[in-house]
Amino acid sequence: MYDADVIVVGAGLAGLSAARKLRAAGRSVILLEARDRVAGRTYGGSLSNGVSVELGGQWVGPTQDAVLELIDELGLKTFRCYADGDNINVIDGRVVRWTDDQMFGLSGEAEAEAVRLWEALQTLSQTVDLDAPWNTDGAADLDRQSLDSWLVANTANATTRALFRLLVPGIFSAESPELSLLHFLFYIKSGTSLDTLVSQTGGAQESRVVGGTHRISEAMAAELGDVVRLNTAVHTVRQDHASVTVEFDGGSLTARHAIVAIPTTLAGRLRYVPPMPNQRDQLTQQMPAGSVIKFHVAYDTPFWRAEGLSGFAVSLEHEFNVVMDNSPDDASCGVLVGFLEGAHARTACELSPEERRDIVLSALTTYFGPKAAEPFDVVEQDWAAEEFTRGCYGGRLGAGAWTQFGKALAAPVGRIHWAGAETATIWNGYMDGAIRSGRRAADETLAETP
Amino acid sequence: MYDADVIVVGAGLAGLSAARKLRAAGRSVILLEARDRVAGRTYGGSLSNGVSVELGGQWVGPTQDAVLELIDELGLKTFRCYADGDNINVIDGRVVRWTDDQMFGLSGEAEAEAVRLWEALQTLSQTVDLDAPWNTDGAADLDRQSLDSWLVANTANATTRALFRLLVPGIFSAESPELSLLHFLFYIKSGTSLDTLVSQTGGAQESRVVGGTHRISEAMAAELGDVVRLNTAVHTVRQDHASVTVEFDGGSLTARHAIVAIPTTLAGRLRYVPPMPNQRDQLTQQMPAGSVIKFHVAYDTPFWRAEGLSGFAVSLEHEFNVVMDNSPDDASCGVLVGFLEGAHARTACELSPEERRDIVLSALTTYFGPKAAEPFDVVEQDWAAEEFTRGCYGGRLGAGAWTQFGKALAAPVGRIHWAGAETATIWNGYMDGAIRSGRRAADETLAETP
Repeated sequence: MYDADVIVVGAGLAGLSAARKLRAAGRSVILLEARDRVAGRTYGGSLSNGVSVELGGQWVGPTQDAVLELIDELGLKTFRCYADGDNINVIDGRVVRWTDDQMFGLSGEAEAEAVRLWEALQTLSQTVDLDAPWNTDGAADLDRQSLDSWLVANTANATTRALFRLLVPGIFSAESPELSLLHFLFYIKSGTSLDTLVSQTGGAQESRVVGGTHRISEAMAAELGDVVRLNTAVHTVRQDHASVTVEFDGGSLTARHAIVAIPTTLAGRLRYVPPMPNQRDQLTQQMPAGSVIKFHVAYDTPFWRAEGLSGFAVSLEHEFNVVMDNSPDDASCGVLVGFLEGAHARTACELSPEERRDIVLSALTTYFGPKAAEPFDVVEQDWAAEEFTRGCYGGRLGAGAWTQFGKALAAPVGRIHWAGAETATIWNGYMDGAIRSGRRAADETLAETP
Repeated sequence: MYDADVIVVGAGLAGLSAARKLRAAGRSVILLEARDRVAGRTYGGSLSNGVSVELGGQWVGPTQDAVLELIDELGLKTFRCYADGDNINVIDGRVVRWTDDQMFGLSGEAEAEAVRLWEALQTLSQTVDLDAPWNTDGAADLDRQSLDSWLVANTANATTRALFRLLVPGIFSAESPELSLLHFLFYIKSGTSLDTLVSQTGGAQESRVVGGTHRISEAMAAELGDVVRLNTAVHTVRQDHASVTVEFDGGSLTARHAIVAIPTTLAGRLRYVPPMPNQRDQLTQQMPAGSVIKFHVAYDTPFWRAEGLSGFAVSLEHEFNVVMDNSPDDASCGVLVGFLEGAHARTACELSPEERRDIVLSALTTYFGPKAAEPFDVVEQDWAAEEFTRGCYGGRLGAGAWTQFGKALAAPVGRIHWAGAETATIWNGYMDGAIRSGRRAADETLAETP
């Protein structure tokens, strides 16, 4: 009667982690993936000199225990990203050097205000109920405000506002009006602290996986073998009292449970029979993905290091405004990675590759001098253009959404369970959260049919 | 090679208006509708005594020239809604009677503040560029704010805030944090004025169609005949340089152009080959529909009239807080129509019908006295639960969306054109706008293949 105990939709880190846990518990599983590859929002690419780069999620760091332990378990290795030397910011037309213990190079009142808001956000974030953000003290008020409204209400300093309006797209690939204060606070606590979220050393951008983070998924897929079926785009999920049937072009499969492990906004595009309850459907209508174009800019050497620069640059005045050293561990060439995020990605996606390259190189030249103008390669990846992702880094909730729809984010609907980084309580939106979410969904199905 | 010149997806007012205009221009057209009926968000029902009621959009009023002329052209009639006598509001625990020339029964500072904000919104709305809201003077600033943030920044009066937080769901079935100030201003100008939007006499709730507004669609469908195909849920739209192929369960049809005339959030759920460009896809990720449950409460007589009451009631303190006299033109029985909107619909949808009935009758008893507790029938319609609507009154844009994605709302993508009330510039979100949008999309295809 059943083709498997559980059918998992989506072979990113969440779906693979779910399948792996189910297999370990002795359950049969089939994993359906729309793409011709596994790994979802992690994805391997290469420079023209053959050096590997990661076109999607690439960093891991402390407190991301799930992904770190999994990397180890799968026999993969990590290495620290280069982060020595001064960082850059561009403020009021000036290129400012700053160190990790400073507030992004701000000074005077702007710095003091930024420190004050930073601490206020950090303190407030600790009050969030991660398992049920809608139950947080004062949730209605925290959810009613956009993060931008909170900023405007809490500081009049234009430079301080500009810093946060830079950092927020750096974290969400969306602008500060597009998420609620409650969502930002949830995200801070989910990812340990605001410092952790934005930091390299000691933070979420500390280390990389040798060979690329997609190898985590590839290793899990290799273990699972032929139960992973590529090029299988699911369009319909039917359920009744005893089973779930998952339909795709050219076939269907039936199981006791399904785990839908794709981004929430895409989960909302599947057809469900019977249809999803109101709250679940309306949630999926309002958890849009961010917009980001990731660039790798490759040079013969990491020339900025010799000038005492870490390669980490931000700018209050450029579109290409979050850049880091992404050179291979052996520094056989120099690579800068950077992003057009949020509003900047939304305008740049309509330009030509040459126009985008000009934006990127013009900014890098400001940050690192004329040598930055002559890379041997520029590789770009626009995640909103990917049919089976349609935006990164992940989904976010705007004002009013957590308190009105949050319960529907991870709650199973009958025999259908939800996984994916958007559904995680710890490290929501990150690889670590994706893995945890898949395991949680697997546990749900295990508990239902012990 | 072509099954028709144009295939229209969705047989609501927009799709039918498009098909009708194309047919009049001598083009061949096929109209595909997922439901077993036409008329979309208009829908006929009846009370237990056989009296007809409208479970969806029902009112028309001055400046809605497109729908008014169409009604006339199709041989249908309208009648004025009953609106004589005093209206009700509940403020600070008191039931207040008020007349149409008063600010919803507010008094003192609350009234003065409401008048001031009302005029400010009305004045500001006149600056909006309806055809391109993103080009409005100061669009970035207007779009950055949610309507709620604007309210909080512009008045400290709690009663004034409460009034606007009542009226906004009354217009959008969504809460004031969920739309941008720019979207509200656009909507005001699109619907002539704020007074027009909220008024019965002289406004958008002035008149009804004899037999129900769904008869407008039914009459158009009757004219079109068998090119309207019901029970045909489209799931994929493919296009190449010469044609569009629309796929549904059990078949496909090819045409020169397609017009997708379904709510924007549902248009985003179709599969497109090739995939939609970034801006279009991300727009559809962030134009969620509102949440509303519409109730008809039926009595032997419109007993409130004898007490000098119009039947129009609002309340700052009840969930069921927008109510109007909806009795048949001959007053053969008394009918009150009212709504659970926005947050109230989102909690109430998870209750039992009996619990919802209690909420409704308890509120009505407060407004109209003990007779209101004994209706002979209560009919409810929850639009978020409808698989092929998933929320009313319509889609809205939250903070940041108009300026970043607005261009993609109605712009054709290759041979695919967009219609539906969400895409209208005049009377956006209303039946009138739906009709105009369908005609505009038809014109686009006519211009492309003269």
